[in-house]
Amino acid sequence: MAADSVTLLGFWASPYALRVKWALKLKGVEYEYVEEDIWNKSALLLQYNPVYKKVPVLVHQGKPLAESLVILEYVDETWKQNPLLPHDPYEKAKARFWSRFVDEKCVPAFLATFSKGGEEQQKAAEEARENLKTLESGLEGKLYFGGEKIGFADVAIGWLGYWVPLMEEIVGIHLLDTKSMAKLKAWFDYFLEHPIIKECMPPRDKLMEHIKTFQRMASSSST
Amino acid sequence: MAADSVTLLGFWASPYALRVKWALKLKGVEYEYVEEDIWNKSALLLQYNPVYKKVPVLVHQGKPLAESLVILEYVDETWKQNPLLPHDPYEKAKARFWSRFVDEKCVPAFLATFSKGGEEQQKAAEEARENLKTLESGLEGKLYFGGEKIGFADVAIGWLGYWVPLMEEIVGIHLLDTKSMAKLKAWFDYFLEHPIIKECMPPRDKLMEHIKTFQRMASSSST
Repeated sequence: MAADSVTLLGFWASPYALRVKWALKLKGVEYEYVEEDIWNKSALLLQYNPVYKKVPVLVHQGKPLAESLVILEYVDETWKQNPLLPHDPYEKAKARFWSRFVDEKCVPAFLATFSKGGEEQQKAAEEARENLKTLESGLEGKLYFGGEKIGFADVAIGWLGYWVPLMEEIVGIHLLDTKSMAKLKAWFDYFLEHPIIKECMPPRDKLMEHIKTFQRMASSSST
Repeated sequence: MAADSVTLLGFWASPYALRVKWALKLKGVEYEYVEEDIWNKSALLLQYNPVYKKVPVLVHQGKPLAESLVILEYVDETWKQNPLLPHDPYEKAKARFWSRFVDEKCVPAFLATFSKGGEEQQKAAEEARENLKTLESGLEGKLYFGGEKIGFADVAIGWLGYWVPLMEEIVGIHLLDTKSMAKLKAWFDYFLEHPIIKECMPPRDKLMEHIKTFQRMASSSST
């Protein structure tokens, strides 16, 4: 392993691994990508991330890092070109706040919409919609969460724009209302059209099949 | 409100508000403290933290911030004296990793130990013990998580040293094994003896009563 080598352990359908891919690409950092089999995790993954045993793991100069938002901070501090976090501490705090909001509030509500049935599902869907509306307020009328260019929160949150329509199709429930959330929808569209963002995105049909499998597993384990 | 005013909305028994108190005190930042009634939240709290409606909220120069770990980062960036995060990006990542680990893994396991009964409780307690053992590995033989002095992760995690014995007493289950987790126990003791840490700590008996009430509420809502 070269002294300054960068390796990313990922999984093609992991939005958390995608965050790190995007960050590295936006900064023009060369890295080796290692695809993990999440059904049969490698000894390397278990060694590098013994606490969570999950992708993504970034290995830089032989030292491993886990947790996508922690990795994003590291990437931004280590390779200073094209900064992701704004310079101002208050703006930084907002980027961190919305990134965490997605992991702590949006993702659990989406998962529940996905895995529950009946009334519980409807309640979760309502919460997921409310969360998306709340998330929209974080844009504050800007083009990106990062302002005029893609920043930390965009990289952390933008995957939802690709995943949500697939989830809606699978469960047959509408979550992103294009009228009442027109600004969020516009941001998703704009973000997803960025060349670097687009080139890393998994193929839609393959991802749809993967999410369907995931949904079947999540539903059966929650009943 | 003065231009550079600092106000903390907290609740005396909130370990998350305590994190912010500690950080401000360690840096010698003067602030106004506003005690919130968490059973009857103030209009100010709801206005400043409409997303989570929770303490702590830090208001600096009239601008509100929520989420204790986000606030800690802000405090460390805004008042640079006595830095909490280390300078090195990899060491920074580790401090962030362990702080998140407590919120994401330790707290849910403690809450389940607290609110469940029978086999579920035993399982949660086992997970809580394993998490504490994992947490200990983050110390890496150092005096504090921050090395020779209190740092970000210490401020984020240290409250456990005061809360865990109370929780153990209430549920009658042993979680922190002083033999197999001697290093963690030593760190807790050392941390809790620090004058600034100690002076902010809520009175033990009053906290015990509060946690008992909390436990009764959590138990009844989980059954």
